[in-house]
Amino acid sequence: MTTLVSSSAFVTALTDELGGRCRVITDGDLLTSYRQDMATVVPGGMPAAAVLPRTTADVSAALRLASEHRVPVVPRGAGTSLAGGASAVDGCLVLSTEAMTTIRALDPLDRTAVVEAGVVNAHLDRAAAEHGLMYAPDPSSFEISTIGGNVATNAGGLRCVKYGVTRQSVLGLEVVLPDGRIVETGAATTKNVAGYDLTGLLVGSEGTLAVITAATVRLHRRPVVPPTTIVAAFDALDAAGAAVARIVATGPEVLLMELLDGTTLRSIDTWKRMGLSGIEAMLVVQVDGRIPADAELVAELCTGAGAVDEPAVSTDPAEADELLAIRRLAYPAAERLGQCLVEDVGVPVSRLPEMIRRVEAAAARHGVTVLTVAHAGDGNLHPTFVFDHGEAGIPAPVAAAADEVFAAALELGGTITGEHGVGVLKRDWLERQVGPDAMALQRAVKAAFDPLGLMNPGKVLA
Amino acid sequence: MTTLVSSSAFVTALTDELGGRCRVITDGDLLTSYRQDMATVVPGGMPAAAVLPRTTADVSAALRLASEHRVPVVPRGAGTSLAGGASAVDGCLVLSTEAMTTIRALDPLDRTAVVEAGVVNAHLDRAAAEHGLMYAPDPSSFEISTIGGNVATNAGGLRCVKYGVTRQSVLGLEVVLPDGRIVETGAATTKNVAGYDLTGLLVGSEGTLAVITAATVRLHRRPVVPPTTIVAAFDALDAAGAAVARIVATGPEVLLMELLDGTTLRSIDTWKRMGLSGIEAMLVVQVDGRIPADAELVAELCTGAGAVDEPAVSTDPAEADELLAIRRLAYPAAERLGQCLVEDVGVPVSRLPEMIRRVEAAAARHGVTVLTVAHAGDGNLHPTFVFDHGEAGIPAPVAAAADEVFAAALELGGTITGEHGVGVLKRDWLERQVGPDAMALQRAVKAAFDPLGLMNPGKVLA
Repeated sequence: MTTLVSSSAFVTALTDELGGRCRVITDGDLLTSYRQDMATVVPGGMPAAAVLPRTTADVSAALRLASEHRVPVVPRGAGTSLAGGASAVDGCLVLSTEAMTTIRALDPLDRTAVVEAGVVNAHLDRAAAEHGLMYAPDPSSFEISTIGGNVATNAGGLRCVKYGVTRQSVLGLEVVLPDGRIVETGAATTKNVAGYDLTGLLVGSEGTLAVITAATVRLHRRPVVPPTTIVAAFDALDAAGAAVARIVATGPEVLLMELLDGTTLRSIDTWKRMGLSGIEAMLVVQVDGRIPADAELVAELCTGAGAVDEPAVSTDPAEADELLAIRRLAYPAAERLGQCLVEDVGVPVSRLPEMIRRVEAAAARHGVTVLTVAHAGDGNLHPTFVFDHGEAGIPAPVAAAADEVFAAALELGGTITGEHGVGVLKRDWLERQVGPDAMALQRAVKAAFDPLGLMNPGKVLA
Repeated sequence: MTTLVSSSAFVTALTDELGGRCRVITDGDLLTSYRQDMATVVPGGMPAAAVLPRTTADVSAALRLASEHRVPVVPRGAGTSLAGGASAVDGCLVLSTEAMTTIRALDPLDRTAVVEAGVVNAHLDRAAAEHGLMYAPDPSSFEISTIGGNVATNAGGLRCVKYGVTRQSVLGLEVVLPDGRIVETGAATTKNVAGYDLTGLLVGSEGTLAVITAATVRLHRRPVVPPTTIVAAFDALDAAGAAVARIVATGPEVLLMELLDGTTLRSIDTWKRMGLSGIEAMLVVQVDGRIPADAELVAELCTGAGAVDEPAVSTDPAEADELLAIRRLAYPAAERLGQCLVEDVGVPVSRLPEMIRRVEAAAARHGVTVLTVAHAGDGNLHPTFVFDHGEAGIPAPVAAAADEVFAAALELGGTITGEHGVGVLKRDWLERQVGPDAMALQRAVKAAFDPLGLMNPGKVLA
């Protein structure tokens, strides 16, 4: 990592060159809002400046100046990271792509779009919907998070059990290298093996290799017939986990399979009064609405795994939207209870019931509150530890419980992060997952893109 | 690139250390068969030795020795590359993974398998079929090509219009680095964002970064209801291309969409007498057999684009198998006519009719024979130029026509290779597609994995 040479000379140069073209923030009070992302447990450093480029040329100029002045750069989308991936370091330049909001092209014939980094996920999806298409990746933050951040973290979401994560929807990228060079990767075709997959390498690189300025993305047909939604209630979370494993092993292809635990349901109910109390787990599954047998099979498998009542089956889109809205309230409901440490482990889906038991045991052992929701069809759990707003940093019992959760995920053949990324929060765990040789490769790849070590320092690689 | 220090000392060391554990070939006559792959227009060099490791430890030992002796290594699967990706260089070690044929695990609950590099694609698919599952990527060579080679080239195939290319089925890899270190990448989960995507970087790296020894792959549900197959005939190839573009833009999701031109059909018919003559293009489409409306819509769209008769619609699996067998005869039928240069361009699918016209014009202009088949739903064309067996190397008119085809693909927003890889054949074209800055990144990535430049020299990067 390189140290700051002269922050004031850099800020002057940046303002001189870019101040007339885009927003450059140097005021301390305004800069404060660029210190942190949604991982509020990570205290961000104080930036020297923030810049909101409007064009790729602006990004290039800002990076060239930062490189010349050896100023570290923290790229940022909407700042919705739950892992501290956009938390600032002292004296850095925060480069926010939030002002790059143009959908440059949307081609309904090829089902592709070229979108700037600052386009909000939901805006792209709505633009696609006008042509009967959809942008499939839908992280829970989809109404506020941006394509640039989604690509930088390889965001998942609810629909990815069928359509794959962000990577599977990205055909190519426009990025700016740390020294300001603009590079395009990939192609506008669904198949392309010309050279190494730089697109795939940049997706999920969390701003540590380059700044993503635009992406060529794949769109999917938007289902014409609404999906059928199956909702099952369970009196134990691991019974719901068992239902998930059975559906994945012997059931039909699902469009979505979300799991909410009793604590989550009660926290939503306390807030929104939706009549959700009294059950320990709820499983929401969607299948193709054109194939009624698929919905029946899912309902049967839920009953076989111990659902407490007959599962509810609905083809009403309004009911489905309401259920998904409940799912998306899980995190804000948890936040009402206190500070949150949101975990993001993944396991092979057959191990989901065991992983759920391990989470519950870790929370009980350390006497901490945990709420668990899961993109269950992908074996991706979000155990969320809640603690008092008064605490500065993560309390020791929470850290201990989280560590046990990570260890369990790895022991069960899983991952420490399914969709949120490593950021700052999981940095110390990465080597335990990938091993020292893969870490050395990752550092060499980092050096290949960012020889001066200026890009998003302290993220991913310790 | 590093030069050979002492080939005989290396061969002795190799034989001493590995000769008792696995096959080591040093006999000149036997080595000849390891000079070339199926890109017979690429004359391979003479290896110093070939080794057929049986275990990952054997691969590690062989690479360590090659590294110590600075001997270049050419990894090889079944040698079915059509781009010269496995062609040997003088004095190299050919490392063939053909003897690593164990399916280490197949988990029907999680729908994953751990497969060694030498497992033949079709063998894995048949093992999966015993559990009602399938391994989706199905290159035309699937009966002979191996998983290691498929992964190294990110192979496509017929089913990838629905299921994606090999990359989408690979969750993790076991690889051996040039210095002999064994590294595992990825996880056994469907979602994993822990660190850079080394798995994705290694998929499609054509043996230039490391040797792939095993892959953790995703399996898919094998459809229970047979697909519905629609076959349409056209009196012009670009009319069939127009049908493809209409189906992609406004039709249902397809499982497969293959296009064969009249020259291909006649060459198959001359050989197999299947009654295929008299039409200029045939389009074979498969859709989900559970949704009859999908097949009707495809047939209508074909008729609207100018199909010469009512398209044939069948739900008979035997008929479908027969049609796919015809498709897979395309390349062997072309080979009966002479030496082949198989191209592999991709374009956005709306540009397919235009690309077809460009191929036909280039062939006509240079007076060369071209047969075109296409994984049409992906916009991936294989124009195959045929010339006399007597020719040594690619005749100038063929090279000129092929160059025009590449240029047209790039002009239409496409790629010089959709699924075969760069190998030797397209090396000189790679920079024209990706540009100098991306080339520099690719070279830096190469150096990060292979600092001595020993892995598959001369492939991908010139």
